[in-house]
Amino acid sequence: MQPSDKALVPFVSVDHMMQLVHRVGLAEMIRRIAEAIEEDFRRWESFDKTPRVAAHSPVGVIELMPTANDTLYAFKYVNGHPKNTSEGLQTVTAFGLLADVDTGYPVLLSEMTLLTALRTAAMSAVAAKYLAPKGTTTMAMIGNGAQAEFQSIAMQAICGIDTVRLYDKDPAATVKCAGNLAGTGLTIVACSSAEEAIEGAQILTTCTADKQYATILTDNMVGSGVHINAIGGDCPGKTELASAILHRSSIFVEYPPQTRIEGEIQQLDPDHPVTELWQVITGAAPGRRDAREITLFDSVGFAIEDFSALRVVHDLTRETGLNLPLDLLADPDDPRDLYGMLMRAAG
Amino acid sequence: MQPSDKALVPFVSVDHMMQLVHRVGLAEMIRRIAEAIEEDFRRWESFDKTPRVAAHSPVGVIELMPTANDTLYAFKYVNGHPKNTSEGLQTVTAFGLLADVDTGYPVLLSEMTLLTALRTAAMSAVAAKYLAPKGTTTMAMIGNGAQAEFQSIAMQAICGIDTVRLYDKDPAATVKCAGNLAGTGLTIVACSSAEEAIEGAQILTTCTADKQYATILTDNMVGSGVHINAIGGDCPGKTELASAILHRSSIFVEYPPQTRIEGEIQQLDPDHPVTELWQVITGAAPGRRDAREITLFDSVGFAIEDFSALRVVHDLTRETGLNLPLDLLADPDDPRDLYGMLMRAAG
Repeated sequence: MQPSDKALVPFVSVDHMMQLVHRVGLAEMIRRIAEAIEEDFRRWESFDKTPRVAAHSPVGVIELMPTANDTLYAFKYVNGHPKNTSEGLQTVTAFGLLADVDTGYPVLLSEMTLLTALRTAAMSAVAAKYLAPKGTTTMAMIGNGAQAEFQSIAMQAICGIDTVRLYDKDPAATVKCAGNLAGTGLTIVACSSAEEAIEGAQILTTCTADKQYATILTDNMVGSGVHINAIGGDCPGKTELASAILHRSSIFVEYPPQTRIEGEIQQLDPDHPVTELWQVITGAAPGRRDAREITLFDSVGFAIEDFSALRVVHDLTRETGLNLPLDLLADPDDPRDLYGMLMRAAG
Repeated sequence: MQPSDKALVPFVSVDHMMQLVHRVGLAEMIRRIAEAIEEDFRRWESFDKTPRVAAHSPVGVIELMPTANDTLYAFKYVNGHPKNTSEGLQTVTAFGLLADVDTGYPVLLSEMTLLTALRTAAMSAVAAKYLAPKGTTTMAMIGNGAQAEFQSIAMQAICGIDTVRLYDKDPAATVKCAGNLAGTGLTIVACSSAEEAIEGAQILTTCTADKQYATILTDNMVGSGVHINAIGGDCPGKTELASAILHRSSIFVEYPPQTRIEGEIQQLDPDHPVTELWQVITGAAPGRRDAREITLFDSVGFAIEDFSALRVVHDLTRETGLNLPLDLLADPDDPRDLYGMLMRAAG
């Protein structure tokens, strides 16, 4: 039986997503997502917001991240299983959905493992654009896993960096990352310690994956005037920075009720002052105040960023036709006659 | 590029679901789901439970319903838009996912518009099996929309009813429902009022869709000894029963924190006594006490029922091979080399 148009939801597979990225260009795709994030952060107050809904197990977490404004609804399914890597699986996989608030009907189902990497990089670059010191040229990238290249490309495309200094406790990860970034126009410096990586860097990005309280940056490593882009501390019990750094920093966050639970600031008192990044973007709150200030973007990833990324993919899907229509929704001729539709499908 | 096996998630489309139902038989499929629900309700305490996460708009609601035990995780996306019917769309559409708690990887994506109708009917029949009076033969079915036939088949298959008395404020809905149920072995009586429909019925099922406080059953309509199966009161501001009926009834619910917000009991004090149905199934709490008691199953639909239904579909999918493998998950050869996978897909 041929499903009707109303029953069909465009699906963007991993292969489609890769084709979309190559059609648009990686840097341009990240730029478009960054623009969508800025646009949505400017209308932050128009969104339904809730901390993500997490199901924790001893080895990982599965989360749902919903949000909506008055026209579109989005959610993402995402897992975090650090031990997966050793089994040949992704630490993080994700997919997401965009739906029409007026009807409740899904309008897009999409892979989001790749898309999450793109939007996380876009988000970091948007934050750095507002917070990093003037004349930033160099980023230290500590943790050279799946997110490292995307961070580098995003900071190059949006913040104009020209040099990335790589460090990972596993030298093979650094070799992989350096190889991938060859030919991007970035100067890549492979370093053998975190201390070496941060030399001369104005942006310090930490993106490590252990599910534990770690100290990737110690207090004495962080000099004045830098911008810290802390990505890896993103669930309860998982942080990357010495708490002394937090006390010396001006801290910027996405959505405080979620960051208080999941971010670096889980180490601080629940009333420790933080600034919501959307207020910096609208101009309601100051970003970097002077050249000596340490700014910290305590990034955990919020649903509105996925909403923004899905909007971009939805537009691109319509522009390119790259999608597979999925027979996801039952659509009987008479909406009350679900049973009749089922019975007519017999045989 | 051919995605690897790890990247592929079996997808059960609406067409596949209809084929599965016909392969197994509708009554048998409902019976299997009812058995899975009973099994999961017996191990109720082993589940992560949370009220569903709802995004309300003036015209409807979009909800996520997650739950997990120590091996499987499930969630359902479901909307409720009463005005959709007048636009030729379903009031309720749904899809859902089952995932492996150990890796966070999805193992099944499935349509759930049809499956929700099956599991809701199965759940009602499980409750009636424990709560309806002995010798029940007749159900009044008030509201003859998309759920009505499934309710009737489930009560026939699991509780042994032989007669259904139909009423809907729209006579066309009753004609549709009576036509669909012809040939099922049930005696169907089309009635022209709710009062007429409940004559001689031991089970009173209400399943109407208006998003408002309605009074489908008034106090004087409900005599002693009946079992009320109230399905339509399932979101804040939407109820079907006069509150006086609630005060005369022994009330059974799925998950109190959700039912207090969404069910008929939103009309009552927050501490009004209710019994959790899982405790009746395990024997920890009594069900029906005597022939004169009015029992009320205040059903709103809980995530564990979807979990149970998805388990059954997952098993059937493996038995029959009826599914479409979806390229939903990025699976680079080296899990840390997402970027390399993307770049190798160029051109």
